[in-house]
Amino acid sequence: MLPIFLLTDFGIDDPYVGIMKGRILADCPAATIVDLSHGVPPQRADIAGLWLASAWRHLPAAALCAAVVDPGVGTARRILLGRIGRRWILAPDNGLADELFTDSPPDALCAVDIDRLVETGLPSPGATFHGRDVFAPVAAGLAGGSLGPKEIGSRVDGWAPSSLPRPRPASGGLLCPIVHVDHYGNLITSARLTVDMAGEGLHVRTADRRVALVRTYAEVAVGEPLALVNSFGLLELAVRDGSATRALRIGPGDELLLEVPPGGLGCYSGEEKQDTGTE
Amino acid sequence: MLPIFLLTDFGIDDPYVGIMKGRILADCPAATIVDLSHGVPPQRADIAGLWLASAWRHLPAAALCAAVVDPGVGTARRILLGRIGRRWILAPDNGLADELFTDSPPDALCAVDIDRLVETGLPSPGATFHGRDVFAPVAAGLAGGSLGPKEIGSRVDGWAPSSLPRPRPASGGLLCPIVHVDHYGNLITSARLTVDMAGEGLHVRTADRRVALVRTYAEVAVGEPLALVNSFGLLELAVRDGSATRALRIGPGDELLLEVPPGGLGCYSGEEKQDTGTE
Amino acid sequence: MLPIFLLTDFGIDDPYVGIMKGRILADCPAATIVDLSHGVPPQRADIAGLWLASAWRHLPAAALCAAVVDPGVGTARRILLGRIGRRWILAPDNGLADELFTDSPPDALCAVDIDRLVETGLPSPGATFHGRDVFAPVAAGLAGGSLGPKEIGSRVDGWAPSSLPRPRPASGGLLCPIVHVDHYGNLITSARLTVDMAGEGLHVRTADRRVALVRTYAEVAVGEPLALVNSFGLLELAVRDGSATRALRIGPGDELLLEVPPGGLGCYSGEEKQDTGTE
Repeated sequence: MLPIFLLTDFGIDDPYVGIMKGRILADCPAATIVDLSHGVPPQRADIAGLWLASAWRHLPAAALCAAVVDPGVGTARRILLGRIGRRWILAPDNGLADELFTDSPPDALCAVDIDRLVETGLPSPGATFHGRDVFAPVAAGLAGGSLGPKEIGSRVDGWAPSSLPRPRPASGGLLCPIVHVDHYGNLITSARLTVDMAGEGLHVRTADRRVALVRTYAEVAVGEPLALVNSFGLLELAVRDGSATRALRIGPGDELLLEVPPGGLGCYSGEEKQDTGTE
Repeated sequence: MLPIFLLTDFGIDDPYVGIMKGRILADCPAATIVDLSHGVPPQRADIAGLWLASAWRHLPAAALCAAVVDPGVGTARRILLGRIGRRWILAPDNGLADELFTDSPPDALCAVDIDRLVETGLPSPGATFHGRDVFAPVAAGLAGGSLGPKEIGSRVDGWAPSSLPRPRPASGGLLCPIVHVDHYGNLITSARLTVDMAGEGLHVRTADRRVALVRTYAEVAVGEPLALVNSFGLLELAVRDGSATRALRIGPGDELLLEVPPGGLGCYSGEEKQDTGTE
Repeated sequence: MLPIFLLTDFGIDDPYVGIMKGRILADCPAATIVDLSHGVPPQRADIAGLWLASAWRHLPAAALCAAVVDPGVGTARRILLGRIGRRWILAPDNGLADELFTDSPPDALCAVDIDRLVETGLPSPGATFHGRDVFAPVAAGLAGGSLGPKEIGSRVDGWAPSSLPRPRPASGGLLCPIVHVDHYGNLITSARLTVDMAGEGLHVRTADRRVALVRTYAEVAVGEPLALVNSFGLLELAVRDGSATRALRIGPGDELLLEVPPGGLGCYSGEEKQDTGTE
């Protein structure tokens, strides 16, 4: 049975996630449900998309991810169901799946047809919580084998683009937008690099500092800043054993300048690159 | 096997929830354990009760919920075990189960007899963490079939009332207490309405605004306030793609006035109504 | 199959925990994964060690705990795999397992040999996220039976000490460092006591108060402070139905004086004592 990974902006303090899991288990009692994260900043489908693309290759080879960052719930926005190999993604068509589908074009893609599902037994969904009323039963049906893609919807060809701010060339290098502060206070940009760029003598500039790109956190002294290519393949600014956002007083909306040497970055062309995989 | 849903005020930063799960799996290695929520505000059995009643009909048809918001732990307060159909609820008798039992009277109700359980093998519980020492082994025993209700306790007939503030009639309408701010900043009242009240031209008043009751978040412009009947069937005040508590500067303890038209609300009588179910 | 308990400082807002679980399920689809906690304060291996030792005896008799509080990731720091009875602990050798191993000397102890694992098929790990790249596949292999301790590493004899501040004798009693504030605002010290010390007329002093050691929270009036031996066997200062850290304005780094009567504490010698167990 496909394990079901949940990626939402519900937070975990309210019972929303628990109710969605209840609804999945009601339809599919043997389901394995895993929290990919419920800490996507509210309504930020672009951040959810960054995480989805970063996590994808670490999921089991056969898996289903239900991603619910869905400020358009109750409107005519589509819900997409895509398949890449033996992995499935179910997400609102608001750009959430754009980076994933751009990296790994879907082998099959359809839009969920709620009317068809209601005709064949789905209780009529409410207008405010499709995580519970649509995503959960569709995921449960797919995971448990009681629903196939043809019962769920009809083929579509495109998807909405992500609004995630992207790196852009600038005088002296590449301007990399900080898009997220993680639990440690690390400043994460949307610039996908390859790990071997550490050690090439590269540096990153903030408004008032120049920081070396190193391989791991412990290469600088405690309390000192460092840049690295993190485990998602993203350029990150950190402070050893501390919070970069607090120490450096920068955060989402700010940008880092990745200095590009005269010969260019070699492994970065301004286009996105895949980080090296574990598969 | 009954899946076990946990509803507590433990938070998830400390290892309390994990230890409770360890204790359940020690007794019942095949248990399915689901977090309904651990974000009940500390000691607020009334809020836990609101969530329990709101979540109940979305649980699997056969399930067990262990609800531990238990400031009276270590005193003589009772622990109740109730059955409604094939669903069980285990909760301290502090009002937590009142709304659920009022909506759906229990088919069976007993009080856990700790002395009897200790006589038949339960390690003597400590005075401060009955989630681990009593709720976990009782839930594991029930879910796994090694304990039946008769081994757990003796029949009782009543339960403690909830102290949740309730809506009350006032000049011009119904005063609806805000009892919770959710992860999005939505202001949730204890007024249970029916979804079809959206579209009847109703409005809600705060101290300085009049807000229309709509069907879904995306019906107003970004940043604008709206009222709706949320996925729990509760009257809620929200701001589209924003935080109502921050934008409107109101929160728990404040009240909304639901304007009642001359002919009355029709589907709201001052008594609680069930929201329409998915079962 | 061994259930896998995770204890980390990853927090739960980012997808780090979810990705680690994905990696475990990729290798071992039937794994039972339990969150012991992901709320260890960042980089605080000593606090993780306190929780590990406190939780240990409540885990199932056969279990595996993967503890990842690992600021030295990517350096030469060792990763230890220890066995105590049928329970396993996998943790960086940074003091995290010291209290556990001191209480319960390991029956077997080895250091993970990453090179050997890579030779036999482990994808080469990155430098920043060994939770995903090393701990997850090792835990999955052990739990699922595809890896034995001999394939994982070679025997070692010692481990790094914990840097957790410990109680120390002082004029009039025992100075007990506050090492953690929990979700309720309770102030938890590193002093392990026995539960029967409540009721011996003992008191605890803060800078400006003297507080009785009682058995349970409800023994004092709402809003009043109390001391007790908590469910971990640790001396704790609390406020009934309130937050001790907010009410008393003290926190980690502060110390409590446990007054020692002329005849001594009897059951506390300045050495650590086991709290009474449920096994």
